[in-house]
Amino acid sequence: MTLQANDSQIDFQPVGKRVTVAKYTTLLEAAIQAGIDLASACGGMGLCGQCRVRLLAGAATPPNETEKDTFSELELARGDRLACCTEVEGNVRVHIPRESLLIGQRLQVEGDDGELQVDPLVRAFEVVVPPPALSDPRADLARVVAGLPETVQVGQVHAEPAVLDQLSPLARAENWRITTFFRREELVGVAPAGSHPLGYAVDLGTTKVAGYLVDLSTGGELARGGVLNAQIGYGEDVISRLAYAHRNPDGRRHLARMIQESLNELLGELVAEAGATRSQVVDVCIVGNTAMTHLLLELPIRQLAVAPYVAATATRVEVKARTLGLDTAPGAWVYVPPSIGGYVGADHVAMIMATGLDEVDRVTMGIDIGTNSEIVLRQPGRPHLASASCASGPAFEGAHISDGMRAASGAIEVVHLTPNGADIKTVDDAPAVGLCGSGIIDAVAELYRWNLINHRGRFKSDSQRVRRGRQSLEFLLVDEQNSGSGRDVVITQEDVNEIQLAKGAIRAGLEVLLEATNTAPEAVEEVIIAGAFGSYLDIQSAKAIGLFPDMPNARFRQVGNAAGVGAKQMLLSQEARTRAERLAAGADYVELTVFPKFNRKFAMAMLFPELIGPQE
Amino acid sequence: MTLQANDSQIDFQPVGKRVTVAKYTTLLEAAIQAGIDLASACGGMGLCGQCRVRLLAGAATPPNETEKDTFSELELARGDRLACCTEVEGNVRVHIPRESLLIGQRLQVEGDDGELQVDPLVRAFEVVVPPPALSDPRADLARVVAGLPETVQVGQVHAEPAVLDQLSPLARAENWRITTFFRREELVGVAPAGSHPLGYAVDLGTTKVAGYLVDLSTGGELARGGVLNAQIGYGEDVISRLAYAHRNPDGRRHLARMIQESLNELLGELVAEAGATRSQVVDVCIVGNTAMTHLLLELPIRQLAVAPYVAATATRVEVKARTLGLDTAPGAWVYVPPSIGGYVGADHVAMIMATGLDEVDRVTMGIDIGTNSEIVLRQPGRPHLASASCASGPAFEGAHISDGMRAASGAIEVVHLTPNGADIKTVDDAPAVGLCGSGIIDAVAELYRWNLINHRGRFKSDSQRVRRGRQSLEFLLVDEQNSGSGRDVVITQEDVNEIQLAKGAIRAGLEVLLEATNTAPEAVEEVIIAGAFGSYLDIQSAKAIGLFPDMPNARFRQVGNAAGVGAKQMLLSQEARTRAERLAAGADYVELTVFPKFNRKFAMAMLFPELIGPQE
Repeated sequence: MTLQANDSQIDFQPVGKRVTVAKYTTLLEAAIQAGIDLASACGGMGLCGQCRVRLLAGAATPPNETEKDTFSELELARGDRLACCTEVEGNVRVHIPRESLLIGQRLQVEGDDGELQVDPLVRAFEVVVPPPALSDPRADLARVVAGLPETVQVGQVHAEPAVLDQLSPLARAENWRITTFFRREELVGVAPAGSHPLGYAVDLGTTKVAGYLVDLSTGGELARGGVLNAQIGYGEDVISRLAYAHRNPDGRRHLARMIQESLNELLGELVAEAGATRSQVVDVCIVGNTAMTHLLLELPIRQLAVAPYVAATATRVEVKARTLGLDTAPGAWVYVPPSIGGYVGADHVAMIMATGLDEVDRVTMGIDIGTNSEIVLRQPGRPHLASASCASGPAFEGAHISDGMRAASGAIEVVHLTPNGADIKTVDDAPAVGLCGSGIIDAVAELYRWNLINHRGRFKSDSQRVRRGRQSLEFLLVDEQNSGSGRDVVITQEDVNEIQLAKGAIRAGLEVLLEATNTAPEAVEEVIIAGAFGSYLDIQSAKAIGLFPDMPNARFRQVGNAAGVGAKQMLLSQEARTRAERLAAGADYVELTVFPKFNRKFAMAMLFPELIGPQE
Repeated sequence: MTLQANDSQIDFQPVGKRVTVAKYTTLLEAAIQAGIDLASACGGMGLCGQCRVRLLAGAATPPNETEKDTFSELELARGDRLACCTEVEGNVRVHIPRESLLIGQRLQVEGDDGELQVDPLVRAFEVVVPPPALSDPRADLARVVAGLPETVQVGQVHAEPAVLDQLSPLARAENWRITTFFRREELVGVAPAGSHPLGYAVDLGTTKVAGYLVDLSTGGELARGGVLNAQIGYGEDVISRLAYAHRNPDGRRHLARMIQESLNELLGELVAEAGATRSQVVDVCIVGNTAMTHLLLELPIRQLAVAPYVAATATRVEVKARTLGLDTAPGAWVYVPPSIGGYVGADHVAMIMATGLDEVDRVTMGIDIGTNSEIVLRQPGRPHLASASCASGPAFEGAHISDGMRAASGAIEVVHLTPNGADIKTVDDAPAVGLCGSGIIDAVAELYRWNLINHRGRFKSDSQRVRRGRQSLEFLLVDEQNSGSGRDVVITQEDVNEIQLAKGAIRAGLEVLLEATNTAPEAVEEVIIAGAFGSYLDIQSAKAIGLFPDMPNARFRQVGNAAGVGAKQMLLSQEARTRAERLAAGADYVELTVFPKFNRKFAMAMLFPELIGPQE
């Protein structure tokens, strides 16, 4: 390779990746080009402080004001930088600390399958017919139809050119003994005799993507897996991503390709794990919030990014899998279920399906906590579900928190304060490098229980356990000697305030939704907590900080990735799709911000509730 | 532009086009690259002798054996070459004679519309709705549905991303007063308020393409036009093209792109002529023979090119217009009607539709003469039509005829022999440069009437009007002094034999079809002649050479481009599509070559019928 005068070579350690970029490219951009999943919550705008790296050698632009605010003089002296603020001026060597990487994260793909109904849209039929002859020159497709079992009502069979392009050579190679996959009257794929039809269900989260490979004839799951949403490098919350997609030429296409490629790679892994072939994958169901499905499908997003946040469509979308770059059976369709309103999307519908919230016979609330959180209320006897969306932000995912991180190795997930310090538990029991969502909630609950913050969330400056940090008061959880990053792990005043904003948004949404539906809080008989974060959350801590109302623990049920289970249901069952469309059409979307009392409720919900008293 | 050592620059005259190609590129390939429609019936295999050019300056490979057989020494000395056999060795200047060009041809697009039924699949609805607000954040598509007239049953409305991508900005730009185009429950396009829905009907012939732009709401035709099938440079008959597509890497894709681009350009011209916009074009119907539709849709063709000539599918094919590169409304579909069997394709179905052959109450035969000719027989009282396909070859289009050409300016189309020579009429009354199909049939009929050929087609060598040509006996129609090309225009022994093969194939097919259906020839009450060639054909001459049986002229009806009319019918009417699918499914395909008597009938049909006596 010949280096041009204006090229710089970047050597990323310890991942050992090299990339050549133009001079004055930022290290964040270079990392993306190198395929490194460098954390960045703000999409490279210098706001989140997550893309910390260390410049080991070589020349770059000097630290800017943001970096000077972010790092101590010692840190700056040893080369600590924000990758998004650092433009290379020559060949450089860069160290990426573990906590800045998105790899090795715990990806929640488990959920309670319950009983899955199996009445798939695509069915397999074995076909054995005589080969063509001059005396029998029927078309290949007609020959297949003639070979179908007599019990099959095929009517006007048709197939796309891409499918016929596989049928003609395969039928001859297999001497006219093949498996055909039909979606109603449409032939969507062919495979050697004896092949089962498979389906691919996806829960496309803002942060995480969970995929499931399912046998459509039995309903059995053959493989499952998770990857991070590759769009994360362009913004951790949906608004940042919509802004990127809208602001940059080809931004929308770029983000779509990114997630489409991830979905295709994940499918490849699942198919390999199951010992199957891609030509068996004849149906796909993808759920996600409204922004994610819009970005996946390259729907118009300009009107979704600004008030009044209008979706292009809330009905189901069906597109050919290959138009999304998915390498499946050539005629396979992707089904994206309908959404309800605002950002309350197909994933919420899937969650309702999986938990049976549309059919339970007691007053039940469902909460799916994520970067956007959705709340749904079921009141038996009333025909409509009521749903609302809260812009809770990514704090529960570890973003906007000074030592926040996702649930990766070394993330503190459980915190108990002791008289002399803190008992912590980390993911993988690795040395602590930061806090993930459940750890942050635990920590804030403990600080409040131990009276180290007041009910407005202010650190008590007169406590000996509270120290003055670089920018504000803070509490030391793990000191630099014991941490995995060589830096203190702390909870700052700003962190507490971020958590107050996030939990306040959800709590206010919950209360407004109850009021809007004339439901007394005590009438709620069950609260279902869905989503990855919700699975690890300590209910007691969540109640202590006022995220949830003070109800008996037994009323809470943590169900894991219900959206993924719902996606599987709709993949496997036509009746489930009909039910999804019915419930989505019949669900009321409650726009919280137009509710007169919302602002006041939000302000109140940011406070901590009356102290129950420190545990232990 | 920098010329590389191995590049040659070709200067084509008188068209005035230049192109740079690699050394040893053939002149035919160079002409194709330059976008010149150079005639070539055999796809560059040195067989047809149509791609005659003259090398004016520069170096090329010496004439090969084929060229030495084709040209006289004088012609060779002055630089006459076959473009497909001549490889350039440096910069050259080339003259393309008028008769080697495919431009300026008469393209038959007229047909008898009769009464067109108008019940289109796509309908327009005007929508006026209030813009979104925080208190009314329904999705854009839901808003459109709410704005539809109450009489409309919309059910589960859906739309593809590409359509929504136009809806969201257009609705805002037009302040939510727009026209929506629905195909059943699918929104396929949007346009400013007051826009009519338009459709595009195409008869995709092996040689010629006819296109029609139609107002779907009224059935009125807004524009029509014709272009040559751009695939001609790769072979004049379907077998040559299938061979090219199969033999060359990417050959299939290349041929598909070629015709797709032509269809798109033609649509652009029609839309401009009508003063409409492409976003109004919401439905498309394309008919063609089986090979043409396979090449258009990139269906597998390997099995179609060899016996038993099996189509990939004979049922309807529906694909999105944009997948064929057609710039229409973003959600528009293309409907390709079903075919019947072998090469008896959707164009034959369209012809049956247009002529009402499936419903007439007398015994009627339909013949569509082309490079492949199709014959259909309707017998009232029998449920099934019977169809057959004859490989008549391109002789009636002027190919494989020494001075044959298509019906372009200067083509002899009418011939009457006189005692001293021949009275001729040419297209545009231009100086004669060759013979088109109707002229060839006239000429052969006259030669037979004047007893210059016997009933086996042999020239009478003892006649003073027959001369010995370079390779065989021949008849001089126009001498070089009076011709437009500076060369004699002749009919040779080989030409007569080619016509015998072509007419014998059709006549034998006709007779076998009658026998196979137990129909006496005299029972046929009407013979419908469809297609461009059939429009100009002199029935008397056709009967004289035995192409048709000797029946009263009044039983013959020449209907022009019936396939184009049928395409319009199916574009405009759902019921017509249903009828097409029913008649195609119910039509019997008769494979002529397996009929025991076919070879004998073919041999007999090549003879000329008992002489009726010379006219005048």
